[in-house]
Amino acid sequence: MSSIIGNKIKVSVFGESHGDAIGVIIDGLPAGHRINFDFVHEEMRRRAPGQDSLSTSRIEKDIPKVLSGIFEERTTGAPLSAIIENNNTKSRDYSELKVKLRPSHCDYPAMIKYEGYNDYRGGGHFSGRLTALLVFAGAICKEILKEYDVYIGAHIKSIGKIKDHGFDKVNIRKELLQELRKDRFPTLNKIISEEMKEEILVVKALGDSIGGVIEGAVINLPVGLGSPMFHSVESVLSHMLFSIPAVKGVEFGEGFNISTLRGSEANDQYYIEGEDIKTYSNNNGGILGGITSGMPVIFSVAFKPTPSIALLQKTVNMDTKADDVLEIKGRHDPCIVQRAVPVVECVTAIAILDMMLQ
Amino acid sequence: MSSIIGNKIKVSVFGESHGDAIGVIIDGLPAGHRINFDFVHEEMRRRAPGQDSLSTSRIEKDIPKVLSGIFEERTTGAPLSAIIENNNTKSRDYSELKVKLRPSHCDYPAMIKYEGYNDYRGGGHFSGRLTALLVFAGAICKEILKEYDVYIGAHIKSIGKIKDHGFDKVNIRKELLQELRKDRFPTLNKIISEEMKEEILVVKALGDSIGGVIEGAVINLPVGLGSPMFHSVESVLSHMLFSIPAVKGVEFGEGFNISTLRGSEANDQYYIEGEDIKTYSNNNGGILGGITSGMPVIFSVAFKPTPSIALLQKTVNMDTKADDVLEIKGRHDPCIVQRAVPVVECVTAIAILDMMLQ
Amino acid sequence: MSSIIGNKIKVSVFGESHGDAIGVIIDGLPAGHRINFDFVHEEMRRRAPGQDSLSTSRIEKDIPKVLSGIFEERTTGAPLSAIIENNNTKSRDYSELKVKLRPSHCDYPAMIKYEGYNDYRGGGHFSGRLTALLVFAGAICKEILKEYDVYIGAHIKSIGKIKDHGFDKVNIRKELLQELRKDRFPTLNKIISEEMKEEILVVKALGDSIGGVIEGAVINLPVGLGSPMFHSVESVLSHMLFSIPAVKGVEFGEGFNISTLRGSEANDQYYIEGEDIKTYSNNNGGILGGITSGMPVIFSVAFKPTPSIALLQKTVNMDTKADDVLEIKGRHDPCIVQRAVPVVECVTAIAILDMMLQ
Amino acid sequence: MSSIIGNKIKVSVFGESHGDAIGVIIDGLPAGHRINFDFVHEEMRRRAPGQDSLSTSRIEKDIPKVLSGIFEERTTGAPLSAIIENNNTKSRDYSELKVKLRPSHCDYPAMIKYEGYNDYRGGGHFSGRLTALLVFAGAICKEILKEYDVYIGAHIKSIGKIKDHGFDKVNIRKELLQELRKDRFPTLNKIISEEMKEEILVVKALGDSIGGVIEGAVINLPVGLGSPMFHSVESVLSHMLFSIPAVKGVEFGEGFNISTLRGSEANDQYYIEGEDIKTYSNNNGGILGGITSGMPVIFSVAFKPTPSIALLQKTVNMDTKADDVLEIKGRHDPCIVQRAVPVVECVTAIAILDMMLQ
Repeated sequence: MSSIIGNKIKVSVFGESHGDAIGVIIDGLPAGHRINFDFVHEEMRRRAPGQDSLSTSRIEKDIPKVLSGIFEERTTGAPLSAIIENNNTKSRDYSELKVKLRPSHCDYPAMIKYEGYNDYRGGGHFSGRLTALLVFAGAICKEILKEYDVYIGAHIKSIGKIKDHGFDKVNIRKELLQELRKDRFPTLNKIISEEMKEEILVVKALGDSIGGVIEGAVINLPVGLGSPMFHSVESVLSHMLFSIPAVKGVEFGEGFNISTLRGSEANDQYYIEGEDIKTYSNNNGGILGGITSGMPVIFSVAFKPTPSIALLQKTVNMDTKADDVLEIKGRHDPCIVQRAVPVVECVTAIAILDMMLQ
Repeated sequence: MSSIIGNKIKVSVFGESHGDAIGVIIDGLPAGHRINFDFVHEEMRRRAPGQDSLSTSRIEKDIPKVLSGIFEERTTGAPLSAIIENNNTKSRDYSELKVKLRPSHCDYPAMIKYEGYNDYRGGGHFSGRLTALLVFAGAICKEILKEYDVYIGAHIKSIGKIKDHGFDKVNIRKELLQELRKDRFPTLNKIISEEMKEEILVVKALGDSIGGVIEGAVINLPVGLGSPMFHSVESVLSHMLFSIPAVKGVEFGEGFNISTLRGSEANDQYYIEGEDIKTYSNNNGGILGGITSGMPVIFSVAFKPTPSIALLQKTVNMDTKADDVLEIKGRHDPCIVQRAVPVVECVTAIAILDMMLQ
Repeated sequence: MSSIIGNKIKVSVFGESHGDAIGVIIDGLPAGHRINFDFVHEEMRRRAPGQDSLSTSRIEKDIPKVLSGIFEERTTGAPLSAIIENNNTKSRDYSELKVKLRPSHCDYPAMIKYEGYNDYRGGGHFSGRLTALLVFAGAICKEILKEYDVYIGAHIKSIGKIKDHGFDKVNIRKELLQELRKDRFPTLNKIISEEMKEEILVVKALGDSIGGVIEGAVINLPVGLGSPMFHSVESVLSHMLFSIPAVKGVEFGEGFNISTLRGSEANDQYYIEGEDIKTYSNNNGGILGGITSGMPVIFSVAFKPTPSIALLQKTVNMDTKADDVLEIKGRHDPCIVQRAVPVVECVTAIAILDMMLQ
Repeated sequence: MSSIIGNKIKVSVFGESHGDAIGVIIDGLPAGHRINFDFVHEEMRRRAPGQDSLSTSRIEKDIPKVLSGIFEERTTGAPLSAIIENNNTKSRDYSELKVKLRPSHCDYPAMIKYEGYNDYRGGGHFSGRLTALLVFAGAICKEILKEYDVYIGAHIKSIGKIKDHGFDKVNIRKELLQELRKDRFPTLNKIISEEMKEEILVVKALGDSIGGVIEGAVINLPVGLGSPMFHSVESVLSHMLFSIPAVKGVEFGEGFNISTLRGSEANDQYYIEGEDIKTYSNNNGGILGGITSGMPVIFSVAFKPTPSIALLQKTVNMDTKADDVLEIKGRHDPCIVQRAVPVVECVTAIAILDMMLQ
């Protein structure tokens, strides 16, 4: 189908890992919003690789060039577009990859889907590099959401089997989200982050990789976003979150755990506080009947371990049509979870702003 | 937004729990397919309530009346529509519900969203009753998928803390799926189902409710369905699955558990078997880079416990704007998981057929 | 593709001329609007056949039954649906039509498109009868547009070569549009309508048919509806108007005639009147750069003569695959232009309300 | 709404007349098609200004730079994108235009729609310059349509009151369309083109402008494209054609003239020729019941005279909120009809390919 998503706001992305440039159009932004591009660039740096020993040493400068949609520092109401030129695409030999399927990568299904005509170099249009565009687009949406006092944040909930605390689902302050944003490896329990980092360095040393879970939160949303039936907030957000490469699970509130509870434990009972209607617990993650309840929207996103590992793997050789083995060389992230935190936040921002403008 | 979903096939639903009728349009079905409506009615009976002590004693005859799109027993290519008349809507007093918000129901956000004009009786357009329409539409899609040799099945993976085995992810036979379909309480481990049923009867006796998890599988899919970026198979299926009321989590393959693995454990390595390229494991649940790999598509769906419980709950009285308590009367499912099995299968069928026809 | 249209408001129609019922869903209507269904039924009577000698003697009671979306007389925000049962479908023999292609009807392309599986009786899903649903949906939109003081009206601009005056494009009063609405054969020049009716009776007597042009107007629109590029008001309205069977041309303002003018004649020059910016002329029909200018939106719609005529016609026999002749029997409109007036108005109302709510 | 159109193929455009670049994404192109970019560049030259005395002397090099979607000279199945840098944007003073509304331009409604934040320089996102992107995208679609033996061509049917012959609607050869394409001022009657050019030079000398009509044709289409109800071929093509700036009318086959005919004259009667079913006439322009009949699709498109004229015009001064006069300086096309010929052809190609791939 298509690399376009959204209703009121439509985000279209294009580009391949090893093409001249990748780019994005954001169509439908309201006119007159002043965008702080320093904030946008900061968000992009949060995702950028090559900043410490935990991620790939590839360096992406990733400076997006805005081509349209901004005039005198404000949105014009016309499509906002930007491109990022691809400078650091080592012209190394990808021919082995064309022949030997990388396990748990898109190589095989993409070859079949596009009948061999896809640009397979570095993952082509499937490359994780395109998430830089999602951060760009989402950071702009975050800027506009601030005008509605809506804030989005996230932390690393687990790396492998090492777990952080979860958010206090009924009470998340803006300051906490802003503080998490400053941390390159954001956890609620600051002690656990060191343990997580060590785990990543261990798997890196082993030529292996590790997965993890990110927990996100959106606060100060109005009551009534989303819709019954097909376009519940859960539907819209999960659609967006599963667009991030490597995501294999999405849950809201207590998520899978709520299935183990009884109704009397799971139900979020109401009370009144001043003018506001609140709930004692927030096991539903701020979404009831598919629409927002006014409580924080809370969700978790499971990432698989990076499929590119240095260890020898079994595969099939498409030339010989026989079993073979593969050793993936080059620089790869032993864990993409910490770099995925701003991606989770930013795609959430796109989906939330889209719902708010409808 | 809207109660319409799909691209090539668009499914639109309408109706309220206590209106004259509920209905569905399926637009975009290819012409010339012979639909076995006996199969469709059987699927609907799998979801229907009032059939044993495990579910509500409400009886829905739920005989859909096809109004268009079928001519001489085959699809015509024009929109196929059907309505189900609402006969068994006890005209009891819902006025208390208008005033006292039911915890974990849509009452409060719906009241705000629709400014008090929504038909709140029995959940209105949010009612679980509308899932009968999804089963009708999905059963028709299942019939067409059979012509492509594609089969969909599901089982109860857990009720509360009681767990069934999971699917053997690399090898699921059509016969297993067909056998599961005949069981009103389908589990892989037949012994565990009795334990699960007892748990449901216990919570029922307590006036409480319980949640659970359903695991679904789609077999014989072609390689290459879905697309990179925004419309991955995970995005499209999760969007659909989160449309089912009470779903709070969706995962593919090993799902959340894959985040605890190392790449060397998680990666699905390839081998060749005759002409076919297969993987030793299927931790990715048949989806790589967002598109189908040819291995079975496997996913799990978490359901929260039914929010309607007989136990006394705290709430807010919207008339007095003060804290209050609520006792929900009437017949309610202590667990909706077993009735949700065909719903999970049928919405999956809609999404899968839509992707196949693109 | 699909029998669904719209963005914020989505209208879906279903049904065939000789099925059990035809129906419509209007999804996305805002909650809380009180709909005067007497007005809606009046609009439907304006389109209904069998009311005088100018149209077919078939009688359609066409009483739509609302199934959902209305509660305590107001829109609920959930999909509003209605069906019209087909009572008057004479079960005559259509087998000749299956064999002999009716000239200028959809028989031949529909047979190919649907591989012979379409319901061909009475035109099936292509039947002009489905425009009753458009009038129903559009009349509801008209009711809501009244709350914005937006009014839509139309008159018969020509029947064959007999022409009415055109609207005064810069000044159309609400009262004029309301007065035209009361007339079953609305013209601006009341004398010309008798001449037109005579022409219709003449062609009827000859077993022939005749076409005509309808001119429509929308007043009191806000400035700024529509968008540059692909979704100009002209694009959106023409898309809708060409959905009406038998329409072969659509133009805005001076339309085709503007192509014969010089810029100095065609340009609509500005002046200020109080707070309002107006133009001396309105050759652009209230649309500049694809978006509304605040002047009345004016357009004309060309209808071909009814293709069903009693005269002998040449055709192809699909059984013998040889040339043949055809005599179409039964009751047919010698002219559908007068009955199409409310259809033009109502589809315009759907498109306009959809743009206003975005 | 949005600068995106299409179903299977989605075309998104961005950019402003005086921004850094304009660009386009074509999403959904099938993989593996070899695109002859020489052909694409030729199509763009057909639209480019500054090539003779009939059009503006502005020179646009308009060399699109493809950024993605092409690999080893073929489409990859991923979004194909291209940008055109804006080099020739004279940085002259547009401040007068911000204050004085240009008659029949978008200035006024755009200012209101975007609350004054739009980039008004040179028309911004409304600029006719963006049609270069439509030609780029459509030329690629033309290349793919050739593989289906589908050809699109057009000629100038009138300039002001001077008329060319119309197409022979039942018999249009590919060679004729290719020959027309080579002509910068394509007419069927080669003598009339000189008269038309003189008319343009006359209005140019007067500081005025003139409109015209283009007639387009699509040949060798399969029977059965399009759909009944809302997405007739007429609906889809007119939607696209009215996206071209300055278009005020669209008609199919005999169009407005068919409304003056009787059914016996207008109906296209069938005959059989070998295996093929054909019609003696083609007054319906190859579309019956909204779907293609296999006869050539024929349509006409009316263009208004260029609104930018040198003559003094009345307007409103937005600073003083008083009546004022305006003299538009600079280089402007006295007639855009000849340059619009490839634009009409190329947007048609986009819409036709989109319908063919569904």
